[in-house]
Amino acid sequence: MIVAEFSELDIEMNETDQKAERMNHSAAHIMAEAVLCLFPEAKFGIGPTIESGFYYDFELSRALTPDDLPLIEGKMREIIAKNEPFVAEELGKDEARRLFADQPYKLELIDEIPDASVTVYRQGSFTDLCRGPHLDRTGEVKEFKLTHVAGAYWRGDEKRPMLQRIYGVAFGSRDEIDEYLWRQAETARRDHRRLGRELDLFSTHEEIGPGLICWHPKGAVIRQIIEDFWKAEHIRRGYDVVYTPHIAKVDLWKTSGHWEFYREFLFSPMEIEGHQYMLRPMNCLGHIMIYKSELRSYRNLPLRYAELGTVYRYERTGVLYGLARVRGFTQDDAHIFCRPDQVEDELAGVLSFVQFMMSSLGFKEYDIFLSTRPDKYAGTIPMWEEATGRLRGALERLALAYEVDPGEGVFYGPKIDVKLKDALGHEWQGPTIQVDFNLPQRFGVCYIGEDGSEHAAVMIHRVVLGAMERLLACLTEHYGGAFPVWLSPVQAVIIPIADRHVGYAHEIESDLREEGIRAWVDDRPQRMNMKIREAQLEKAPYMLVVGDKEMASSSVSLRLRTGEDMGLESVAAVRSRIRSAIEAKS
Amino acid sequence: MIVAEFSELDIEMNETDQKAERMNHSAAHIMAEAVLCLFPEAKFGIGPTIESGFYYDFELSRALTPDDLPLIEGKMREIIAKNEPFVAEELGKDEARRLFADQPYKLELIDEIPDASVTVYRQGSFTDLCRGPHLDRTGEVKEFKLTHVAGAYWRGDEKRPMLQRIYGVAFGSRDEIDEYLWRQAETARRDHRRLGRELDLFSTHEEIGPGLICWHPKGAVIRQIIEDFWKAEHIRRGYDVVYTPHIAKVDLWKTSGHWEFYREFLFSPMEIEGHQYMLRPMNCLGHIMIYKSELRSYRNLPLRYAELGTVYRYERTGVLYGLARVRGFTQDDAHIFCRPDQVEDELAGVLSFVQFMMSSLGFKEYDIFLSTRPDKYAGTIPMWEEATGRLRGALERLALAYEVDPGEGVFYGPKIDVKLKDALGHEWQGPTIQVDFNLPQRFGVCYIGEDGSEHAAVMIHRVVLGAMERLLACLTEHYGGAFPVWLSPVQAVIIPIADRHVGYAHEIESDLREEGIRAWVDDRPQRMNMKIREAQLEKAPYMLVVGDKEMASSSVSLRLRTGEDMGLESVAAVRSRIRSAIEAKS
Repeated sequence: MIVAEFSELDIEMNETDQKAERMNHSAAHIMAEAVLCLFPEAKFGIGPTIESGFYYDFELSRALTPDDLPLIEGKMREIIAKNEPFVAEELGKDEARRLFADQPYKLELIDEIPDASVTVYRQGSFTDLCRGPHLDRTGEVKEFKLTHVAGAYWRGDEKRPMLQRIYGVAFGSRDEIDEYLWRQAETARRDHRRLGRELDLFSTHEEIGPGLICWHPKGAVIRQIIEDFWKAEHIRRGYDVVYTPHIAKVDLWKTSGHWEFYREFLFSPMEIEGHQYMLRPMNCLGHIMIYKSELRSYRNLPLRYAELGTVYRYERTGVLYGLARVRGFTQDDAHIFCRPDQVEDELAGVLSFVQFMMSSLGFKEYDIFLSTRPDKYAGTIPMWEEATGRLRGALERLALAYEVDPGEGVFYGPKIDVKLKDALGHEWQGPTIQVDFNLPQRFGVCYIGEDGSEHAAVMIHRVVLGAMERLLACLTEHYGGAFPVWLSPVQAVIIPIADRHVGYAHEIESDLREEGIRAWVDDRPQRMNMKIREAQLEKAPYMLVVGDKEMASSSVSLRLRTGEDMGLESVAAVRSRIRSAIEAKS
Repeated sequence: MIVAEFSELDIEMNETDQKAERMNHSAAHIMAEAVLCLFPEAKFGIGPTIESGFYYDFELSRALTPDDLPLIEGKMREIIAKNEPFVAEELGKDEARRLFADQPYKLELIDEIPDASVTVYRQGSFTDLCRGPHLDRTGEVKEFKLTHVAGAYWRGDEKRPMLQRIYGVAFGSRDEIDEYLWRQAETARRDHRRLGRELDLFSTHEEIGPGLICWHPKGAVIRQIIEDFWKAEHIRRGYDVVYTPHIAKVDLWKTSGHWEFYREFLFSPMEIEGHQYMLRPMNCLGHIMIYKSELRSYRNLPLRYAELGTVYRYERTGVLYGLARVRGFTQDDAHIFCRPDQVEDELAGVLSFVQFMMSSLGFKEYDIFLSTRPDKYAGTIPMWEEATGRLRGALERLALAYEVDPGEGVFYGPKIDVKLKDALGHEWQGPTIQVDFNLPQRFGVCYIGEDGSEHAAVMIHRVVLGAMERLLACLTEHYGGAFPVWLSPVQAVIIPIADRHVGYAHEIESDLREEGIRAWVDDRPQRMNMKIREAQLEKAPYMLVVGDKEMASSSVSLRLRTGEDMGLESVAAVRSRIRSAIEAKS
């Protein structure tokens, strides 16, 4: 299930290379042939590749069960063993219609192809409507696995028939499938929804509503530490922290263009004394109001307003996903108001801030995308071109490699998106930097220049982390829940061997807490081994076991969450070991 | 104007004693007599005392102007000089009707009095319908002042005639009126709305909506420092910080009783996918959901969840007032879930926490009120009695004096209200502690007891500061904007005498900033004296003037915001002086 959810979720994987794509696509045809052998009456839908393999949709006389998969796999192996070639053929549409006369879904597809002819691919006696490309022969599919079955409406339309979708993956070697299976298991093990429950980090509640997160104490500790770190770094870099309201009159969002261009993500308005108000989907307008509360001079710029601002955006229930896609989230937002001549310096400053934050959180790899003008946009094309040029300029100045993501900008401006790679190579939407000539114009955001007259300011919107919710999801999966010491909700569990050691355990606890270390004594009546097992499940980085020997020598027996046994260590040494790990953010 | 707004606002003043009340009430009659002399056709409304003096409403042949007040005051002085006695008389209603035959408002009042007879008070030839009491003679009014005129609908009903209201104050001595006038000026000088603008602390915007606060960088610094201090203290005292959403399904608020008992303060619902959602007016329900996400044992209790939670409550535009009465505010909220046997310990802990916070913020005086069951309430009377008893018990255990405020509890439970006194003696709603047997029952909030069966938990709702918005208002007025050093948005302004001292000024700035001191160099092209004046207006605690002499000796000329000149002081000494002031929170 994970596989499908990931692909549906658009958490993008590494790009599958073309070889893997041909491999999977060919396996889909082989599977279709195998299904036809076992279910001669089968009607075929479509069988594309996806990020994580392939699927094919079928209409069958009965519902498939997991037991059917080994049978289909067996048939596939026979077809592979025959090592038949994949042969492409171009047919006139009428000829194709005759060929697929008993395949209503294929006929529907043929009707929709605008060209006069269509391509089909044949292996052995099986022919499918297909653009290709494929492998040369069936025998090149070395390893494959059918993973699961799900229902899927024909063309995703709930008014059309429900077909049965079989998912699978194919590989060119044993090593690849082994890695795939390991990655599958690892992805499931690291799933932040599962770890979120196991580590007691967060919850959602049907009573509150889907996509609205309750941060439990242990998740909130991580958030707080990151927020404190974030604030200190912002102050150091010349930002001012501000707070602005979560609601505002709808008219404000009409002026900004959100009402026109961003409507699908807006919550429905509330009425107060005859005025319509709305939950904010973004933090920018509050910052604009603060900027505009005074006349600004060219000497005052840049002004950098930062806010850990919670925003609310409507997403369909069906696409909500743990902490990664939600309806309410806190952006680590900032808006920089500057003169045109300051834009590139500011952008460069933001990009290096992003690099610093990513490395502080332990992300070594990320991809950078430049997202350009979408179909629905505000402002003029020259504005967009200038803004896009500024972003390019900053990327080039820092010699950062990037790809263009056409049409993925926000309605008010182009943006740089940074996608973090977690330990398994999954990509997560992270920092974003936008240049905006648009809102300043709509709101008359200006400054008095050296010449004494008014000039339009430029606005840079940016998040250096993204959303606190998604960040926790990403960190959880990146570290598999074993957070670096500075972020660990529980840093040290002190485990007394017998009741007579409880007092000593509490002394150590106070000692460590004095140093700001999150330590606690597990003085429950359970046995020591069980406590160690539980501390390990909780992924506490340090376990301090104390008994007679330890008490006598003012020390502890130190275990790491890796299972490593560090032997006897003095309390002072453990304390400074933990403090150093915290300070190093390691 | 300030006077009226304060009293209308319900920011309660010191109780006026009965003497002052009789003084003001008598002055109102004297003023009425004076008005009758000058406007023989006047029709009289009512003339009560208010917290800050008295007023009388009149229907007159023309609009009053400020120039009329000295004329009326002159007439009043004549009446006072006559030293007429105030004489009470009881009249039958018919006789009273004859007496007030040409006074339609008085006739309306007489009709509404249920008794067979009414009381009138007479001084000289002037008689008024009045319950008294009054002074013995007009000459006892030693000092008075008419402060301003305003329009007021008869009986506050906009469909009835608009009368003219004259406000005044009266005193028994010159000293009292001097103090009154000083206090008036001081209240105006400290008004947080005025200082909020002057010190650039916050703003509201018609475009966003009234009662919704934008915290500017300098206001936000104060809030951040208090929030950080608040969080550290909570962690030290065994609280866990959590975060919960600002919206939830309306059904949740129906279960809690807010929909039934608290409706007038709720914002109108929004619709999402067929469900109604609402902005939260309180943070409790999110905390209940976190509590209920796991089975809790008696061993886990108490659990203390703290959140700096922004809530939204509807208030009429007319009653909104700066930061003191708003529509969106952040409560420093916490909910303690505990066993019945833990309630009093927890309450005592909260009360001492409140005392600690108040003294840290520099409030030496406060009054404590025990607010009991309101007219609209949830739960049973025995529940209310038990909860009220627990609050009483805790107050008595700490030997804290308190008054009972009947009917002022929240619908789900009684509460302790702490009202802070600012430097002028104005009272501000501050910390609140509530005991709640009600919501735990409505939501099935329970724990597994030592006996293995389910027991209802008790919930304590509490804020140890109140709302961050009101706190900033109160701190601003308490300190008249000259915040203690640890809270000052700008702690040190470094003022170079000439351009050649700017480099040295920046060195000092870096040095102080390294130590976490909020210092900046005023390197604008203005003259030194003007910079000193501006730093003083900004109420920066330390001004560091640097010129040749200072550069040569690695020192600064230190000025305090009090105007005190501390002479030459080494940079190291200034740095440690400021650090000590910050640490002492002085």
